Formats: sequence, C-alpha cells, structure tokens
Amino acid sequence: MAYSKKPLVGIIMGSSSDSRIMQGAAEILDEHKIKHEDQIVSAHRTPARLAEYAKHAEKMGFKIIIAGAGGAAHLPGMIASHTTIPVIGVPILVYNDKHHKKTDTEKFSAFGGLDSLLSITEMPSGSPVVAVGVNKAGNAGIYAMKILANEFPDLKKKLKLHKSNQHNSVMKESDQLQKQGLSKFAKKKFN
Amino acid sequence: MAYSKKPLVGIIMGSSSDSRIMQGAAEILDEHKIKHEDQIVSAHRTPARLAEYAKHAEKMGFKIIIAGAGGAAHLPGMIASHTTIPVIGVPILVYNDKHHKKTDTEKFSAFGGLDSLLSITEMPSGSPVVAVGVNKAGNAGIYAMKILANEFPDLKKKLKLHKSNQHNSVMKESDQLQKQGLSKFAKKKFN
Amino acid sequence: MAYSKKPLVGIIMGSSSDSRIMQGAAEILDEHKIKHEDQIVSAHRTPARLAEYAKHAEKMGFKIIIAGAGGAAHLPGMIASHTTIPVIGVPILVYNDKHHKKTDTEKFSAFGGLDSLLSITEMPSGSPVVAVGVNKAGNAGIYAMKILANEFPDLKKKLKLHKSNQHNSVMKESDQLQKQGLSKFAKKKFN
Amino acid sequence: MAYSKKPLVGIIMGSSSDSRIMQGAAEILDEHKIKHEDQIVSAHRTPARLAEYAKHAEKMGFKIIIAGAGGAAHLPGMIASHTTIPVIGVPILVYNDKHHKKTDTEKFSAFGGLDSLLSITEMPSGSPVVAVGVNKAGNAGIYAMKILANEFPDLKKKLKLHKSNQHNSVMKESDQLQKQGLSKFAKKKFN
Amino acid sequence: MAYSKKPLVGIIMGSSSDSRIMQGAAEILDEHKIKHEDQIVSAHRTPARLAEYAKHAEKMGFKIIIAGAGGAAHLPGMIASHTTIPVIGVPILVYNDKHHKKTDTEKFSAFGGLDSLLSITEMPSGSPVVAVGVNKAGNAGIYAMKILANEFPDLKKKLKLHKSNQHNSVMKESDQLQKQGLSKFAKKKFN
Amino acid sequence: MAYSKKPLVGIIMGSSSDSRIMQGAAEILDEHKIKHEDQIVSAHRTPARLAEYAKHAEKMGFKIIIAGAGGAAHLPGMIASHTTIPVIGVPILVYNDKHHKKTDTEKFSAFGGLDSLLSITEMPSGSPVVAVGVNKAGNAGIYAMKILANEFPDLKKKLKLHKSNQHNSVMKESDQLQKQGLSKFAKKKFN
Amino acid sequence: MAYSKKPLVGIIMGSSSDSRIMQGAAEILDEHKIKHEDQIVSAHRTPARLAEYAKHAEKMGFKIIIAGAGGAAHLPGMIASHTTIPVIGVPILVYNDKHHKKTDTEKFSAFGGLDSLLSITEMPSGSPVVAVGVNKAGNAGIYAMKILANEFPDLKKKLKLHKSNQHNSVMKESDQLQKQGLSKFAKKKFN
Amino acid sequence: MAYSKKPLVGIIMGSSSDSRIMQGAAEILDEHKIKHEDQIVSAHRTPARLAEYAKHAEKMGFKIIIAGAGGAAHLPGMIASHTTIPVIGVPILVYNDKHHKKTDTEKFSAFGGLDSLLSITEMPSGSPVVAVGVNKAGNAGIYAMKILANEFPDLKKKLKLHKSNQHNSVMKESDQLQKQGLSKFAKKKFN
Repeated sequence: MAYSKKPLVGIIMGSSSDSRIMQGAAEILDEHKIKHEDQIVSAHRTPARLAEYAKHAEKMGFKIIIAGAGGAAHLPGMIASHTTIPVIGVPILVYNDKHHKKTDTEKFSAFGGLDSLLSITEMPSGSPVVAVGVNKAGNAGIYAMKILANEFPDLKKKLKLHKSNQHNSVMKESDQLQKQGLSKFAKKKFN
Repeated sequence: MAYSKKPLVGIIMGSSSDSRIMQGAAEILDEHKIKHEDQIVSAHRTPARLAEYAKHAEKMGFKIIIAGAGGAAHLPGMIASHTTIPVIGVPILVYNDKHHKKTDTEKFSAFGGLDSLLSITEMPSGSPVVAVGVNKAGNAGIYAMKILANEFPDLKKKLKLHKSNQHNSVMKESDQLQKQGLSKFAKKKFN
Repeated sequence: MAYSKKPLVGIIMGSSSDSRIMQGAAEILDEHKIKHEDQIVSAHRTPARLAEYAKHAEKMGFKIIIAGAGGAAHLPGMIASHTTIPVIGVPILVYNDKHHKKTDTEKFSAFGGLDSLLSITEMPSGSPVVAVGVNKAGNAGIYAMKILANEFPDLKKKLKLHKSNQHNSVMKESDQLQKQGLSKFAKKKFN
Repeated sequence: MAYSKKPLVGIIMGSSSDSRIMQGAAEILDEHKIKHEDQIVSAHRTPARLAEYAKHAEKMGFKIIIAGAGGAAHLPGMIASHTTIPVIGVPILVYNDKHHKKTDTEKFSAFGGLDSLLSITEMPSGSPVVAVGVNKAGNAGIYAMKILANEFPDLKKKLKLHKSNQHNSVMKESDQLQKQGLSKFAKKKFN
Repeated sequence: MAYSKKPLVGIIMGSSSDSRIMQGAAEILDEHKIKHEDQIVSAHRTPARLAEYAKHAEKMGFKIIIAGAGGAAHLPGMIASHTTIPVIGVPILVYNDKHHKKTDTEKFSAFGGLDSLLSITEMPSGSPVVAVGVNKAGNAGIYAMKILANEFPDLKKKLKLHKSNQHNSVMKESDQLQKQGLSKFAKKKFN
Repeated sequence: MAYSKKPLVGIIMGSSSDSRIMQGAAEILDEHKIKHEDQIVSAHRTPARLAEYAKHAEKMGFKIIIAGAGGAAHLPGMIASHTTIPVIGVPILVYNDKHHKKTDTEKFSAFGGLDSLLSITEMPSGSPVVAVGVNKAGNAGIYAMKILANEFPDLKKKLKLHKSNQHNSVMKESDQLQKQGLSKFAKKKFN
Repeated sequence: MAYSKKPLVGIIMGSSSDSRIMQGAAEILDEHKIKHEDQIVSAHRTPARLAEYAKHAEKMGFKIIIAGAGGAAHLPGMIASHTTIPVIGVPILVYNDKHHKKTDTEKFSAFGGLDSLLSITEMPSGSPVVAVGVNKAGNAGIYAMKILANEFPDLKKKLKLHKSNQHNSVMKESDQLQKQGLSKFAKKKFN
Repeated sequence: MAYSKKPLVGIIMGSSSDSRIMQGAAEILDEHKIKHEDQIVSAHRTPARLAEYAKHAEKMGFKIIIAGAGGAAHLPGMIASHTTIPVIGVPILVYNDKHHKKTDTEKFSAFGGLDSLLSITEMPSGSPVVAVGVNKAGNAGIYAMKILANEFPDLKKKLKLHKSNQHNSVMKESDQLQKQGLSKFAKKKFN
C-alpha cells in the first residue's frame, strides 16, 4: 500500500531522452510504494511551464521535486526559484552509445557532466538547489525517501532495511572474494 | 518562539576553521528560530565519532544534518552512511587571506573546491548525499528550512516572505540602476 | 546624436554587484551614442520578471539584449527562452579583492568563470545564447554594435574607425618597443 | 521564397571534416529559406584567404558569418579581426567513431572542445567573437535567424512558430510520460 | 616459498566490480610469493566494517593495506583514519565497455578518475594516505614490495631483478625499432 | 637524395606502444629525405640510458631530438636536461580502442593528455622543452624541418611547397563545398 | 633518543624555494626523533645527481625517500627509477605572496598543483611513486613514520598517541563550539 | 661581440602589457649577445601585420620567432601560418596584482593560462607551433639559443657553461641545506 493517495514526489526532466537516466529515481520510489508524478518541463522550450508547474506542484502538495537536466541544466534552479518545495537536482550526462544515431552529433555532452553539476549547485545565495552526482538519479530517489521518512516513520524502517541489505550483499561478495583470492575472483567475474 | 524545544538540525563540520564558512547556515536558522546543535566531527581525526554522532543525531531526532568539509571532504558521505537522516553537504574552500598566517602553507586548497564538491556528490548508488555550491552554507540553511516546511507550515510562509523580500530588494536596486544608468550606478557603487 | 530615440539595446544583469563588470558594455554603447536601457533581472530572486522583461523588451523594440550573470548564470538562457531577440551572454567572475568585505565568504566564485561560461553556451539545440569571454562586457558592447551596423550603416564606419584606431595605437607602441628594445621598454612600463 | 536573392549568411569552416557538424547550421537556414554561401577557409593552411574572404563577405553584403573550427580554432577570431560583420563561432569537437580510420590517431580532440571554446571566446577587449556550445552548429543557425529577424519581421514570426512547435512537442511527450509513468516510458524508449 | 605464513598485505576494495582493476595488485604480489588477504570493505555500504577491518588488520599484523575505490573514493582515507598501518590508495575509473550492461547508466565515472585521485590525496594534515595513478593497481603492488623490502632483503633483490628485466625488455624492443625504422616497426605492430 | 649521410634527427619514445603515434613524425621526415635514428628510451625503465642517449646524440651530431611520451611523460624533459640539443616533446594519449586488449585496464590515460602536455611544458626556468599538441607527432616532424631549414635552404623550398599544396587542397575542397552546398557536401562525405 | 644513529629518511627537493613547503616533513620527523638527511637534487639542473643520490641513499640505508617538486615535478619519479627505496612524492604549488618579488613573474604556478600531482602519480606500470596532497609535506612525514613503524614498534605507539591527541583536540574545540553556538564561536575566532 | 650584425631572433607579442613577461626572453638573449628585434603584432588589432611581419621576418633572415600572447593567443599560430621560420609560442597569464588598476576588471585571465597553452599547441596537422610553459619566456630564450647553437658552435659552449653554472648553484645551496638541516634552512630563508 502506498504512503498516500496523491503523489508525494514530482519528477521532472528537461527532455524525453533524460528519461533513460531518470527512471533510476522512479524505480526506487516505485519499489517503496511512494507515489510520484512524472512530467517533462523544459526550461528553454517551455519556459512558461516553469511557473505553471511550480503552482501545480504546490497545489498537488508535492513534498519534494526531483529535477534532472543535462547541458546548461537550468531546470532544477529555475523550478526552485518558483517554489518553496525542496528540489533535488540530477546532472545528466548523455553517453555516446548505441542509443544514439551517429548523425546526432549535437547531442553528446562535451564536459563530462561538470557543466550540469555546477549549473545546479552554483546557485546564488538565497536560492538553493542541491545536487546528487552525475547521472545518480537513483540516489535522488533514496534521498527523497530520507526526507519523507521524517514524516512517514515506516520509511525509516525501509531505509534501515535497505542499509542492512546492502551490508549483507557486500559481506557475501567479500566472503567469496576472500575465499577465492582476488585474482581468481576477478578472472571469474570479468572473463 | 522556536519551532521545537529540541534542535531540529544538526550542524557539523570537519574542523574549527570551517566555522568561518558554516556560520552562514547557523545565521539563517537563528534568524528563523530553528534550533540547531553544532559540533565538530572530523572523519579523519575522530573516526569513532562518526557512528557515535549518527546515533546521537537519531536519538536527538534531528530531521536534517548539515555537514561542511573541505579538501577530501569525507564527512558528509561518512555520516550519511551511518544514518537515514538526510545530509546536506557543504564543500568548503579555504581562501588564502589575512585570516591565515603566511606559514600555514599546507592549509590552502589547491583545487578551487572541486575536490570537495565531487567527494560529496560522487557517492556510490544507494548512499546519497546532496551538495550545495562551494562555501554556500547559507543555502544549506535555507534548503533545510524547505525540508522542514513540509512539517512546519509556518516556515512555508517565512520562505515565501523571504522570496518576496528578495524580489523587492532586487526591484529597488533595479529602479536605481535604470534611473541612474549603468555607468553612473557602477561608478557610485564601486569607486 | 543618438541612433534612435528609443533604446536599441537592453542591458540586464543578475545582481547589482555585476554592474562593476557590466559597465564595460555601457561605456562602449555610450561612447557611440547607442541608447540602452539597464535593469537588474534576477532569474532566481525575481523569476516572474523573466517573462515580464521579455515582453517589455519586445514592446520596447530592443534589437539586442546583453545579459550578464555569474555562478550558475541562468539569466541569459532564460531570457532567450522567453523572446526571439538575440541575447549576448556575459559570464561574470567575481574577484576576491578590496571591493569585498572579508566576511563575504560566500561571494567568491570558485571555478574561474568556467561554470558561468558553460551555463551560457551549453544551451540545448533550438534555444541559442551566445557568449563572449569571462568578464568581457566591453566585447559584448562592440558585438552589439556589429549587429546594429547591419541596419545603421553609420555604425559600420565607426567600427572601421575603431579598428583603425586600434591599429594605430598598436603601431605607436610597437615603434616605441622596437626603438627602446624589449628589456628597457618593459622596465619603464612596469617598474 | 527566400529572403533575398543574395546570400545573407556566410558559413565557413576550417576543414572539410568540419562539414559533418556544420551542416546543422545549413539545415536550419535551408529550412527557413535563408540563403547562405559555404566555404572552407583554413586560418592555418590558407592564411591569405582570411583577408580575402573578409573582403568577399563585405562585398557580398553578408549580415552574419558563422565560423566553425576545432582544436586551436583560430578561424572565428581571425575572420572577426578582418571585418565588422558579426561572427558566430562554433567550437568543434571531433568524436572518435566509425567515421574515422583507426590510424587517424592525430585527429581526435583531446580536450573535450574546451580548447576550441576558449580560443573563440577569450578574444582580447575590442575584438569580439561570440560562441555557441560545442558542436551546436544548429544553434548558430537559429541565432543568425534571430539577428536577421531584426530586419526581416517575417523571420520573427517563424521564430515564434518554432518556439511554439517546441512547446507543443514537449507537451505531447510530457503527456505520454505522465500517463505511462516514467519507468514504462523509459523502457519503451530505450529498450 | 612465501615470505611469511601470514599475509603481509591486506587488499581491500569498495565493491566487487573494483576487482577487475585491483587484480593488478594481487598478480604482482602472487608473482613474488607475498601473501595477501583480500576483502571488500565498502565505506558507505558497510561503514561499521571500517573500524572492524582496521582492528582485524592490526591483529593480523598486515604491514601495508592497499585500498582501491572509485567515485567519491572514501575508503582509503577512512581506513587510514582507523589504523596506523600505511595505506596505499588506488583511484579507480570504471570504463564504459563491454563488461557493463548498456542500462547501467549510473555506473560510469564522469570525471576521469580525478574525483577519486583528489579524494584520496587531499586528506587533511595529520591523516595521510598516498595514491598511485588512476587504475594503477599493479604499481600499488610494487610499491608495497618496496616497503616490505626494508624488512625482507630478498625482496630488494627481486625488485632489482624486476628493474633489470624491464631494462632488458626495453633494450630488445629498441634494437628492433632502430633496425626496422620507426615507420616499419609501427606498421608491423599496429596493423 | 638525403640531406646528410648521418641522421639529423633522433626520434625517441618511452615505450614501443608509443610507436603508433610517433610514426607520424617519421613519415614526414622520410617523405622529405631527412635521415633520422629511432630508439626507445624509457626514463623510468632505463634511466641510465638518459645520459647515454644524450651522449650518443651529441656524438652523432643530431640537430634535433623528437621525444614522445605519455602519462607522467618525463622523457622529453629528462633528455633535455642531459644535452644542449633542442628537444621537441610530443605528449601521447593512448586511446581505448581495438588495438588494446580489454584486460589492459591499466593502460588507458585518464586525463586526456593534459598530464603529459603539462609535464613537458612546465619545466623549470633554465631547462626548456617545447611541446606540440597531444599526439601531434606529425607536427613535430614538420617543426624539425623548420629548424633544419635554417641550415638546409632546400628544405625551406619544400616547406613552401608543402604550404602551397595545403592551400591548393583546401581550395579544391572549398570549391566543391561551395558548389554543392553544405548539406549535400556533408551528407556525401559522411553517410 | 633517536631511532638510529644514521638517518632513516632522505628528504630531497627540486629547488631551495621548495624548502618553505618541505620543512613540514622535517618538523614531523624532528618531533619524533627520526633522523633525516636533507638535500637539493634538481632533476633538470643536476641530472647526474639523480643516479648519484640514488646510490648514496642505498649506501646510507635510507628506508624512505621524501621528494618534493613543483611544476613538471620529475624528481620523485626519476629518483624512484634509480632505486628500490620507496619514494613519497610531494607536489608543490608556489603561492603568489609576499615571499616573492613582483618581478618574479615566471615563478608562479599556473595549474594549481595539478600538473605536479599528475606528474608524480601517472608513472608507467612498473615504476611506482606515490603522492600525498599538494603541499602536504607534513603528511609525507607522518606516512614515513607509518612505514618505519613496521620496524620500530615504538613509533606505532607514537602514532597512536598522535591520533588520540588529534581526537582530544577536536573534542575540546567541539565542546566549545557546542556551548557557544556556531555563530558566536565563528565570530570570536575570525573577527 | 654579437653573433651577427643583424638580429637572429624576432620577438613579438600581442600587446604592450605582455612585455612584462616577454622581457624574460630578451634578457637571456641580451646576456648571450644574440641580437633580436622586438615588435608588437596583434593578431586581432593589426591582422594585416601578420603577413607583413612574416615577410619582414623572412627578409631580415630571422632564424627563430618568439611569439608571446595571452587569452585566445592566436598570434603564434597565425605567424607560423605565414612563414616557414620556426615559431616558439609563450602562453601568457596576466596576474591580478599591483601593476593593474582595480577597475581593469576585463584584463585578468580566468583560466590559468590553459586557454593560451592549448590555443598555441593544438594547431592542426601540418601547421606546427611549439610552446614553452605558461609565462616561461626565459625558457623560450634558452630554447632559441639551443636552435641557434646548431649553427653557432660557440653558443653550444655557452649553453654548457649555463648548465654547469646551474649545477654549481644547486650544489652550493644543497650543501647549505644539508649542513643546516631543512627546518633551520627554511626558517632562515622565508621568515
């Protein structure tokens, strides 16, 4: 059963191609039954939507907005300027791989995501956005859970379970590694 | 009147010299009557305190931890690994100025804060910390308010007032600039 | 006599402290009798002004907007998203010098202006902003003249005069340098 | 019908391999019936052509020059030094992909386009060139339209139509995303 | 015959995927019969293990710990904070290649290993970690041998043999190169 | 007929894998009948060879040494410290491509050649090395020709011929581009 | 009483001006009665000394060499190539301050120490040097102690004492901070 | 007595303010009686001078051109494109110090000289320029001597004397350092 009838988190992104990365946030929230609403809001192609979406988000009672954007990445900062809801920015770096046509020469990011990371964090005093690491949409999802856990104590338990699962899975792999020795373990895993 | 008898926010920093930057967070919280508790927790000089502080923070019921650190800046990530409370990291860049003795040659940061920013954001999947911009402790304070406003609606009003104050103060300066013209305005302000 | 009764260029900047750099653009335009209107428009502190200013600029018939901003520097891109008027972005880097109080620790830019330069240029396909170099507001002023010279042929003459003045002033200094020899010339100039 | 019998825009590039990127500018102009003339002008292999081309461009009455170059990327700045026509620089980054022979080891750019971007923007005071983002030739095309729209009001309408088309296409995709939910939308699009 | 019954070196890494790089250290130690124990210790997923592992390492009498980590790379510094055993850090950069599924979009490092290198070296005064180059796990293995050679003089001989083997293998290739000439040599080797 | 019976240029490189890039220098010299001698001299694997090679180079009467090296790239600077013969450094960046086995994880350069470029140029005052661009071995070959042309006037003619050939080949391609138009030209060339 | 009659550590640096930074290493060793011998060995101005010093170091029985260098920073790597003694590299960044004459324009480092850090760490496979952070000579001293503690158990105790002193001094400052509150504490300390 | 009646080296720079750095080259040449001619040639303010100066340099019989430039730094590459004389580029970084008026906000370089270094080295294949380190004009002077020494054997002797002087001066300082010990030596030198 979900934590609320209405979505608690708004996920937005600057373009449909960002969905490839941003699904990482959705998966975490889905897994923990946290309702979210997902939209594309382009700071540059739909500037009027910035204020509209902010109003919509306040009306919907979103408690957190997760905003992903690549390149100049103005979306997280601009949404944050229109609302008092906390915004978590996800800097997005498009990789040059089989998902892109070879003629899409304008699409590949040239600066390793640093441009987007700084465009999200270096907001002026008084207008904060926070950032997770480049393409770490999943971490934005977990951070949203951490904020929500302040009001939904049951989420705190889930986060603790998540931590202990992480711990156990590391322990299991470490035991294998220790027994097999590093060379054998790596050769098995990568060859 | 404060929002709670107990502190809602824990502020920590890696060394006493970070207090010069981190006071920016305290000032915002003080101004809005949000109680906070302040400590120095060094990931490297007091590693045992990481787990202790995390336990303390959970017992105290902190809803947010603001953690400032410079250089390798492991503090925000390590605290986040010990607790489910959301951590806001502040990358700290020490400037080479009159506050430092000329022989303190080991103290000046060589990488413009980029080292600290990346050390805070590039956490592995599953263990999120978020970052504000380099030295933007004040923004961490406001972001904490945004999170708290989910539970304390009165803070939402204060944030809106803060926004409209910002708006008004820009408008006032813009009117002066427009009337005087840019050259005269700038000469007055900077000479 | 100016080229028009109404301003041809709108100069905007993200904060009053940017006026120190942006006056470089105003001086060029003033010197060549090109009327400009100057305002402060903060993408983050006055987001509603973005659309308003864009409408104002179109109504005023501005032919160019020069927009200066530091840090995350969203202003040029956001204004460009609201209007079809060409926008010239000026990335602004605040230097740590006597014009700043020593306690203004949050004000100094940590990334040498690279953050602002990339935030201005790396706009998505379809929403262009162009940038001059970091703090090169004067160059933005001259570039505006180059654009206006398409419609005001007299400006073309002024630009050519400007070029030949540059040429002559280099020649004069070069002749001195050649006669005195480099060592003597440099010692005179710098000691 | 085109806006003029003669080309309004001169497109130049440093080498024939830059045509792969620069066609993005031509496509925009072609689509909007803006005539352009295209040449290869190498600052380093045909230095005498710089002055010749500048003279040619003035004689032809080009209103804008779009100049693409990679590596040291001197072309935009050097052309701008020979003419008062506004120059839009396009920093070009050659990707290491199937279009290059494996033995073309000298051709791949090592600095992510930052070398070219800075070589275009960091011109001295008095000699401006402006830059769009790395490989964003299409944006240079649209920016040229924005400048031309000052004289050809019909282009202003086309730019507004372009904006509203962008808006509509984002809205359509956003509606799909909202209905399907992020996870399903992304999986459909990328798998 | 090995140098000791018990392992002299502890090799740890932040995740099982780091084993691909870290096997380089194991191979060197295996080749020279230096016993090592290998574990996965995640600073963020198993924070309690940091102190435990440090205690274990001291009890085991490890003389050196080699710690590999990517991204925020806190592991080497955090282990060093818990023990007086010298720690050699290996910054790890995950390459985007066939060993990763195309949907593993969150796994690729965006900063070329610089984030990890600085997170390892920029430790505060008083808490040193040293680093080898990015992904240079083999060099960490040899460096460990150099330290151990202080106590096991036989290792000094092996290191000298290693040096003279390197010398001889370079000489052999150089002789070929000199005889064949560079063009022929390269064509043979790479085509 | 060659310019001398004995080689005029010594080409050295840090490892046999650098021959893939360095052949670019050999090809230029071969094409112009300039004799060169080629060796592998590793600053780190054969340190004693540095002084030996320098002595050899002086005895052979080399007029220029071209030295290629990647990573820490100490070779050019160290050879320059042992001789008064001018050294041209070639920073080498190893690309991650089919010429490397997938398990060669330690071989790929993480810093885009910047590490090597700076290690070559940032020599202390009094001990100069000069650098060409990353992987630009061919340019080192041509620069050697430029130096030799001071003594062999016939080479000056060849360099001028090379320049006019470059000019003509650009003109030919430019004519095609101009006739076909950019879009058609690019599509033909790249699809 | 010192740990040995003969020095255990050799400290070298590339120029006398590096002594300003390198004294940090000497102070740590002096404080703990670890004998060291100090020399200037310039890789570029005294290349013949590299092999000589390496021989000297082996004859003296140094167990560790600490080598500081700025700019191209070849010293640590070149010494490591001549000996099997472990070398700790200290990248040195010269600050532009009152210790330099205003005409010393060639002395200031332009790359924040990154050039030196990479020149030390990016050694080829088989020839390791390790690095501490930029200007962190003190940390090199402590790391040397950690290595020596493998053979001198009394040093292990001193290192533990050093750790507990660090812990106590952080605790003392943290208590002050907690009592006074962050704003008051910072104002006292910095105004 | 000088090596020739006519100058052998042409020194040029992009602006008179570059003379502060470029005097380093002149001093070396003056000290060794190598005649040079010094001019200001601005690629952007006097583009027609590029071809003129190249012709002048060929007529004068210069054997080397030393070209200093900051910012976009096109001068070295553009001169090299007009002549077959070898060009040594000096990337120039203007420091923010007492030699500049506080209102000269547009003059300070934002990219640490990296922009200029890359603009000089990253020339296309076929058009080489070489670079010394940022602001290392003195090294350009010595490199010119190394080239000239191919034709003027007496210069070879001077270069060897220069090397042995360097060696002796290091030895003298090293002896002092060794006797006094590092701490005392540094304190004397810097306090």
